[in-house]
Amino acid sequence: MELISIIPDFQPRNDPELLKKAEALRPELHHTEYPAPAAYLLNGAPLTGNPEETELRQGDQLLADFGRHLVGRVSLQLAAAGSHQDAPAFLQLDLAEIPGELAEDPESYHGWLSPSWIQRERLHIDRLPAEETLPRRYAFRYVRLTVLGTSPKYRLVVKGISCRAESAADETRLPALPPLDPELTAIRAAGLRTLAECMQEVLEDGPKRDQRLWLGDLRLQALGIYASYRQTDLVKRCLYLFAGTTFPDGRMSANVFTEPEPAADDTYLADFALIYPMALQEYLSETDDGEAAEDLTEPALAQTDWVLAHCLGADGLITREAAKDCLIDWSDTLDRSACLTGVLICSLDACAGLCTRRGAELRAAAYRRVAAQLRRSALEKWWSEQEGCFVTGGQTAIHTQVWMTLADVMPEGRAEAAFGKALNALDSPRMMTPYMHHYYVTALLRAGLREKAEAHLRSYWGGMIAQGGDTFWECWDPEHPEASPYGGRVVNSHCHAWSCTPVYLIGRFFS
Amino acid sequence: MELISIIPDFQPRNDPELLKKAEALRPELHHTEYPAPAAYLLNGAPLTGNPEETELRQGDQLLADFGRHLVGRVSLQLAAAGSHQDAPAFLQLDLAEIPGELAEDPESYHGWLSPSWIQRERLHIDRLPAEETLPRRYAFRYVRLTVLGTSPKYRLVVKGISCRAESAADETRLPALPPLDPELTAIRAAGLRTLAECMQEVLEDGPKRDQRLWLGDLRLQALGIYASYRQTDLVKRCLYLFAGTTFPDGRMSANVFTEPEPAADDTYLADFALIYPMALQEYLSETDDGEAAEDLTEPALAQTDWVLAHCLGADGLITREAAKDCLIDWSDTLDRSACLTGVLICSLDACAGLCTRRGAELRAAAYRRVAAQLRRSALEKWWSEQEGCFVTGGQTAIHTQVWMTLADVMPEGRAEAAFGKALNALDSPRMMTPYMHHYYVTALLRAGLREKAEAHLRSYWGGMIAQGGDTFWECWDPEHPEASPYGGRVVNSHCHAWSCTPVYLIGRFFS
Repeated sequence: MELISIIPDFQPRNDPELLKKAEALRPELHHTEYPAPAAYLLNGAPLTGNPEETELRQGDQLLADFGRHLVGRVSLQLAAAGSHQDAPAFLQLDLAEIPGELAEDPESYHGWLSPSWIQRERLHIDRLPAEETLPRRYAFRYVRLTVLGTSPKYRLVVKGISCRAESAADETRLPALPPLDPELTAIRAAGLRTLAECMQEVLEDGPKRDQRLWLGDLRLQALGIYASYRQTDLVKRCLYLFAGTTFPDGRMSANVFTEPEPAADDTYLADFALIYPMALQEYLSETDDGEAAEDLTEPALAQTDWVLAHCLGADGLITREAAKDCLIDWSDTLDRSACLTGVLICSLDACAGLCTRRGAELRAAAYRRVAAQLRRSALEKWWSEQEGCFVTGGQTAIHTQVWMTLADVMPEGRAEAAFGKALNALDSPRMMTPYMHHYYVTALLRAGLREKAEAHLRSYWGGMIAQGGDTFWECWDPEHPEASPYGGRVVNSHCHAWSCTPVYLIGRFFS
Repeated sequence: MELISIIPDFQPRNDPELLKKAEALRPELHHTEYPAPAAYLLNGAPLTGNPEETELRQGDQLLADFGRHLVGRVSLQLAAAGSHQDAPAFLQLDLAEIPGELAEDPESYHGWLSPSWIQRERLHIDRLPAEETLPRRYAFRYVRLTVLGTSPKYRLVVKGISCRAESAADETRLPALPPLDPELTAIRAAGLRTLAECMQEVLEDGPKRDQRLWLGDLRLQALGIYASYRQTDLVKRCLYLFAGTTFPDGRMSANVFTEPEPAADDTYLADFALIYPMALQEYLSETDDGEAAEDLTEPALAQTDWVLAHCLGADGLITREAAKDCLIDWSDTLDRSACLTGVLICSLDACAGLCTRRGAELRAAAYRRVAAQLRRSALEKWWSEQEGCFVTGGQTAIHTQVWMTLADVMPEGRAEAAFGKALNALDSPRMMTPYMHHYYVTALLRAGLREKAEAHLRSYWGGMIAQGGDTFWECWDPEHPEASPYGGRVVNSHCHAWSCTPVYLIGRFFS
């Protein structure tokens, strides 16, 4: 599935009042200096000498490991050794979140996402010594410097590499967290770092790629924030941005641009829009923010109302056609109709809750009636007593079992077997993203399978740490570690907001 | 021949007083705006529409022809068309003086000069619209923009490309020049442009590559300036720079760095050092500058004295060993001993002239005596009555005939036949550079062969124009138009100071 929607002459509908409130909530960025990498390799071998005295010739490669994931601005302090510099220095910098990115050749990447996301820069330095601060922001742990050109007369010396990291996360707001065993401690730490790196002027999906506010990611980031930094104003800003710039018919976009001005993208994902009422309800439960309830409840309800009005078939359920405009998980083959029906039911419950909070009990009851009807219809249409699980389009996908469970459609006591059946079905789509794995863990919890949930959290997120991650990734299938939904791992994001949920899951359920 | 000299721990000897005078003569740069290219190609075909409305997709190439050679700073005005920009724009810019440079692949260049001179830049533009002014100075007529990355959602629009050209040449100082036939008019114009483009904060050898003050080039540039812009202060500044920073023993370097501070390179070329007295004498003849005569005569004489003391063998002539440290022309095989002896004789004559100017007649006479002795010895050793030309190391090279003529060693009336013999000798080195061809033309004039001299000027420099040059090149052998002394034409300089001499030759001899 290629997530490219283009609507000719699309103009978002903006609400200046809501956008003004979003702008007023723009966070201050905190800056931290990381003056030097923790370790170096020179041409693949550990550097024994002082990096500041190592003279590099044309063709040499210096790999600097900062020891942790960083988001920020990189500075190089460069000098020449030998005879007088008689030609520019020509450098290539590859910035990578994990070593695997460095093993790929950017020139041979031909995937459908833009190669412009690949963090490779080439610099000419006319005069040495020089202090070069690269103007762009990067997300990286590793910096590989390749000397593409010096001259026979001089060598290049890297007197220093440093990073001025930036994040809206305020470490002073992080409460003391309860002690955990080493495995969970490491998983929580990587989740916190993932979350903090994505907390920028908005809640970004990934600081390496997209660098943008996506609705599905926002909900999971917000859950992480409630369990850690508690910077609810940043969540509020993002909720206002989605309500402040929408499709002309009021639908919320899957993501919002903030530069040069806030603007809805012309991409609609029904599951993301349906998540907005859930995200708002969770925000209001955390904050009891009357202003947000006043401003955002109607925009939230409108998301669910639009799906009810446009996406249901004669059987009262999401049509397969309508289910094409949703994500659920990265998969080219997944039949999403039951999944999206599950998301809709959860959304209806959230809408009912939002109405109750506003004292609109009649309206709340109406949402509950629709949800109940959807539950009956979904069970009738997709539950297979013979298979012992939900079946859609011939698939016994785990995604479907998960959302039917979260939507309380799964028959009592049948979840464990249904999950097992789906996970073992060789011809059904596998879960590809931590986003989907999050909902799997919450479905296990909903089904009362707490031990299985914790074991899965340990093995799945712990697996990324075992593979060298110190942040969590956009995509991770332990059986296909090289997989990319984009046609090349070099553009994958390895610090991705929707993967931060161990912060929430551990805080809420496993500590 | 690879012109790489490296002297460990080399420290130039600086004369602060002379360098202060050089600094005081730093010229003002004049800036001219070139707001738009004259023509465009899109993916190789002439662009029919308005370039400002042409939407470029990933992989597209836009070639802009500014219609003339420029030295300056390039600005791009960039915008996006289509859906909202959802990924950085990733551009490659190739800047070329002649189209032939664009036909070569920089990635496959493996010559001995640094690939850092290749004028290729890659840019990431995170936010469109954007105005990007590239920080480096380039020498170019053509700008090829390749869109390495947009995204499926948007196209790139080049709203404008412009150049802020810079040169120390003051067009208001250029006198009215006499009318010429079209061919000589075109040659003089290209020579003037070549000269002006190399007039920067110093007289650069080439604004694309090296961008530096070389002694052999300086003399020819100065001759061009006397016949055109008459900005003799810039010549004076360069003469002071060579005298102000030298080898510890007082020898002048073949070239001088000016950034970050003036510093002699650790490269000695005997022919270049020997040219300094000639360049000074010519400067004083033009200006009658008493301060320069006072300051620079002794440093000039020291160049010739050093060669006399260190480079002569038992026969009183330049040794083959000593002749390795000189240029004469780009050639791997040329036996340079007679050539350098010729340069030395010319240098001795100049020293005598400098002494006479200072009233030091005894010293002048001494230089003349040495020159006369060298002439006799050279004739005796290298003239072959049987061959009818000079022979060195088994070669009947044209270079040798030229310098023996310029040094007045060539027997009366024998030059024409000697030149013909040398030019037709298949096993002798060919002339590779306009620098050498300049001295060939002046040797023809010295031998009284004015028509041959003019015909050669027309065919040789006119040949570069016929090949598409609007400035003159560092290297040009009409029989090997693709030749490069560096292992790849992509690093050749196509606007090179030592090629500007038609300005002088036409002004002095052919108009």
